Amino acid sequence: MSKIPVMEIFGPTIQGEGMVMGRKSMFVRTAGCDYKCSWCDSAFTWDGSEKEKIRMMTPLEVFQKLKELGGNNFNHVTITGGNPALIGEPMKEFIELLHKSNIEVGLETQGSKWQDWFYLVDDLTISPKPPSSGMKPDLELLDDIVLKLFHFKSNFSLKIVVFDDVDFDYAKMLNHRYMKHNIPFFLSVGNSNPGEDGDISSRLLHSLDWLWGKVLDDPDMNNVRPLPQLHALVWSNKRGV
Amino acid sequence: MSKIPVMEIFGPTIQGEGMVMGRKSMFVRTAGCDYKCSWCDSAFTWDGSEKEKIRMMTPLEVFQKLKELGGNNFNHVTITGGNPALIGEPMKEFIELLHKSNIEVGLETQGSKWQDWFYLVDDLTISPKPPSSGMKPDLELLDDIVLKLFHFKSNFSLKIVVFDDVDFDYAKMLNHRYMKHNIPFFLSVGNSNPGEDGDISSRLLHSLDWLWGKVLDDPDMNNVRPLPQLHALVWSNKRGV
Ligand code: SF4
Ligand code: SF4
Repeated sequence: MSKIPVMEIFGPTIQGEGMVMGRKSMFVRTAGCDYKCSWCDSAFTWDGSEKEKIRMMTPLEVFQKLKELGGNNFNHVTITGGNPALIGEPMKEFIELLHKSNIEVGLETQGSKWQDWFYLVDDLTISPKPPSSGMKPDLELLDDIVLKLFHFKSNFSLKIVVFDDVDFDYAKMLNHRYMKHNIPFFLSVGNSNPGEDGDISSRLLHSLDWLWGKVLDDPDMNNVRPLPQLHALVWSNKRGV
Repeated sequence: MSKIPVMEIFGPTIQGEGMVMGRKSMFVRTAGCDYKCSWCDSAFTWDGSEKEKIRMMTPLEVFQKLKELGGNNFNHVTITGGNPALIGEPMKEFIELLHKSNIEVGLETQGSKWQDWFYLVDDLTISPKPPSSGMKPDLELLDDIVLKLFHFKSNFSLKIVVFDDVDFDYAKMLNHRYMKHNIPFFLSVGNSNPGEDGDISSRLLHSLDWLWGKVLDDPDMNNVRPLPQLHALVWSNKRGV
């Protein structure tokens, strides 16, 4: 396969989460996922509901679409999904194409599959799914991915979405597992109703207050960084911004 | 002087701003400032209104107070002011004391004065004050500080508070000035009424929406990261949290 299955391309917008929070970025969302998280906010990438919108595009076509939308008004692209790690060689070519234009690349994946092009990503977020998702991440595979990135000195982070106490304990177990490597470790407060209309900021801030309380009470979580989805605070649940 | 003028010590709480946003941290606020910003949210550190609360403390006394308050429930301390860069040798000793206990140190200063101990700080934020503050930063001195930190490969960032279009243009000028060094560059949306009671989150999110719009419209600001003061969103204007 020399093409990328693209669900949507949009931006420029603000990256509202994780290790480059606040950075202006274009977004490329790939289609397809090997998980089926119960609360997936991008289920349209894999559940068939919007399959007529998927475009098979070459790396150059994606690049051209980004330039058409963003012009010179960006120097960072975020690749998300679905799970972009399902894509091999064309993703590597795409990242190299962006680097040739001095555009940095961020990417998020759940850590269920390794790709050698992970080493090329400028800011990589590995986001293992907690129990509330209904998924059971393969932790030995995750160890393998984390240690490879660590030894390569990749600029990467772990990010766990936390909806409830059980998720928090899962995050704590993972934090303990990798603590000696001093890897940036983010918690992201779950958006329990991604379809809700209107201003959801007070509900999300209330959840963040809860998560901050959990972290502040726990001496095993001194290093983690609990953060909101800023775009959801500012723009609520709008898509494509 | 072998003591540190301490205004307040509190925590553990969450660092709501800048380069380590979300990190659990203890706070040490020093007394005294060489600036008088119009909108200073810590004017009590320098305007005499709370001068009876200032304690002259040795580095060891500050350390002991931190341990008394936070126990083992922190591994990061944020030093802020006032302007902590007014303090020389005792600050160096204090940072070394924290490092001996494997506690990381963050520090924020406006960049009006150099100290050799800047090199010891684990995350250093230089925050030159924009026109709305009424201050006129010495840009040659600032260049000197920024270049020293850059050549030492310090983990530091620039952060500009933005209240209005004039502040934004000032941030743009500074971004242009240092762009070739690729220094992390944050914008922080100004809290125009730090004394306001009650829930201020919708006003602050509205201001952030405005700032995001300015950044998104400006191809000269592709690298900057506009962020809120998260603690003000979650906890409004409470002091000591
Ligand atoms: S891994 Fe991500 S895209 Fe896949 S189902 Fe889970 S939340 Fe959705
Ligand atoms: S530099 Fe900081 S502490 Fe000093 S007056 Fe300005 S805002 Fe206040």
